[in-house]
Amino acid sequence: MKFKHELPVKIYYGSKCLSANDKELVKLGRKAFIMTGPKSGKLSGALEDVLEALRLNNIEFSIFDRVENNPSFKNVEEAGKIAADFGADFVIGIGGGSPLDASKAAAVLAVNRIKPVELYKNMYKNNPLPIAAIPTTAGTGSEVTPYSILTRHDLKTKMSFGSRQTFPQIAFVDPGYLRSVPVKILANTAVDALSHSIEGYLSKRSTPVSDLYAVESIRQFGKSYKNLLKLEINEQTRNSLMYSSMLGGMVITHTGTTIVHSLGYYLTYFYDVPHGMANGVFLEEFLSYNYTASEQKINNILSLCELKSIREFGKAIEMLVGNFKLTCEDARKCAESVPGNKVSSNPENIDVSGLYGIVKKSCC
Amino acid sequence: MKFKHELPVKIYYGSKCLSANDKELVKLGRKAFIMTGPKSGKLSGALEDVLEALRLNNIEFSIFDRVENNPSFKNVEEAGKIAADFGADFVIGIGGGSPLDASKAAAVLAVNRIKPVELYKNMYKNNPLPIAAIPTTAGTGSEVTPYSILTRHDLKTKMSFGSRQTFPQIAFVDPGYLRSVPVKILANTAVDALSHSIEGYLSKRSTPVSDLYAVESIRQFGKSYKNLLKLEINEQTRNSLMYSSMLGGMVITHTGTTIVHSLGYYLTYFYDVPHGMANGVFLEEFLSYNYTASEQKINNILSLCELKSIREFGKAIEMLVGNFKLTCEDARKCAESVPGNKVSSNPENIDVSGLYGIVKKSCC
Repeated sequence: MKFKHELPVKIYYGSKCLSANDKELVKLGRKAFIMTGPKSGKLSGALEDVLEALRLNNIEFSIFDRVENNPSFKNVEEAGKIAADFGADFVIGIGGGSPLDASKAAAVLAVNRIKPVELYKNMYKNNPLPIAAIPTTAGTGSEVTPYSILTRHDLKTKMSFGSRQTFPQIAFVDPGYLRSVPVKILANTAVDALSHSIEGYLSKRSTPVSDLYAVESIRQFGKSYKNLLKLEINEQTRNSLMYSSMLGGMVITHTGTTIVHSLGYYLTYFYDVPHGMANGVFLEEFLSYNYTASEQKINNILSLCELKSIREFGKAIEMLVGNFKLTCEDARKCAESVPGNKVSSNPENIDVSGLYGIVKKSCC
Repeated sequence: MKFKHELPVKIYYGSKCLSANDKELVKLGRKAFIMTGPKSGKLSGALEDVLEALRLNNIEFSIFDRVENNPSFKNVEEAGKIAADFGADFVIGIGGGSPLDASKAAAVLAVNRIKPVELYKNMYKNNPLPIAAIPTTAGTGSEVTPYSILTRHDLKTKMSFGSRQTFPQIAFVDPGYLRSVPVKILANTAVDALSHSIEGYLSKRSTPVSDLYAVESIRQFGKSYKNLLKLEINEQTRNSLMYSSMLGGMVITHTGTTIVHSLGYYLTYFYDVPHGMANGVFLEEFLSYNYTASEQKINNILSLCELKSIREFGKAIEMLVGNFKLTCEDARKCAESVPGNKVSSNPENIDVSGLYGIVKKSCC
């Protein structure tokens, strides 16, 4: 038994956790650069809570509310420049994965004269600005990971960077912010969170401690997805979804994601398939392919979700996020897009033809 | 559901984890002040491993191997002064709870001109020196907590200080170091670790995430204590004990300890009872007293230990660490020694007469 554990994010979890702990912001600096999308920060009430906390603590701020869905190099470069011009000494990311990931990029770029592509070196001369992360969706887990996933038009895919330097220093995780999220998005993001936990649980890089997080995250998904299907979203459901998502982030912080995410990036890049769905369509065949190598863990996943078979699991995911069709030619390209490090962490040995098999069964 | 989670310690766990990651020491500084007891660092081989890692990386060092069992103010004051004179820029603690806790105190005192009693203010002008913690017993969990427990002769007890500033930056947790530990000490420290996990699990300050650590820690104890009783200590047992202890530390980092530890400090201060035993003697009655308030969790503890009743649990602990007798007068003083914050985190309401009941049933 050998593993590493590292989670240098101070997490406050719970309803109104930001206003109850607003003094924490003062420790990050006196000039905050807020990054959010055009909608979610406002609709969820999170932006308002942040502004109130900043005003109460006499912290200056500047708002950048143009973070794109699946942010591009251009988008984070612009944000970094504005943050630098403003003289920000910390960044607050508010939103789903896109604003949180973009805030990590901008925190680096604001204090390092580098091109966005150089973010992928994962070593920066100047320490990135401290980051406070406030999720308003329950999928990404980005508030507790060092990862930032940007769209790489140069490589025609999405790709993550991240190191010890890009962990948020603090996360305020308030399930109340999910109140304004439409059920369809809740379902989509729940499957993203589930995918993090399942991928990390089965990955060759799984650790005993990441498995504790993964099992509990999957259990919380199991407690909530039937309510999503019945459209019965109450406080308990929102709590399970948000907690599941945060734990899923704690999983991939230690394990990374696997072939499922890589295959999903292809669908998102070329067909704009929402991230949760893009992972979800591959999950059933991912479990089938790896059943022999990970029988005990996969049986545990099914039992935690109160489902009897991988087929039933696949049906439940399809009911949550739908399915997606590719041509055979595209399926092959999708299979070929998976990078080597993701292939090597798959529990069962797999090559391009194995990946092609998964994509074909999932999407053709 | 509201909680905070904070664990800013980079942990490497596993056999030979220090030599596999010796470059990490370079990140802490160029002059190491090593703190250990007269025996355990040498017997376990941990000191030798540290010296090799330091030499390989051209890091200067000074060794202080006079850490006392239950270190006093005088002991840590001396260590802090020598570290300052040496110009240490980081501290390496090697050993059981005493050296690890003393290294936290010395890391503060080396760079702050304060009296040891001022450690309890938990705010220091200068950031303590970075600490690397290397446990050679499986009980304290101090490698992953901010706590340092010193003997306070002024108050005739042991008392802990600790804050974000006193977390070790890095922990190397190698179960191989337990090879040289006598079974009696393994049993004693295992009960200390178990006590951390049980106390944290039942504490009013328990959190959903600390409960994940606690349950797994207790499960690992359950897997190993029968081997301790049979004197069958193999690699798997050592691994379970060390992992259980580390997880127990991760629990109390979030929950603190409870009345059990406070009662135990009395026995240790006045009767030199080893720490694990000093907690162990109270565990059965602690569970009995709190059964109504925490029925589900206590049943889970019994099931994780594969024991049928609290009485059976008590017998198992007694076989591991023995029992201890007090006079009725002393039992009352022991009950009166528990501070208010420990009383308030007890699952069931409790006052001095309730505490006296626990002590009387345990020790009279």
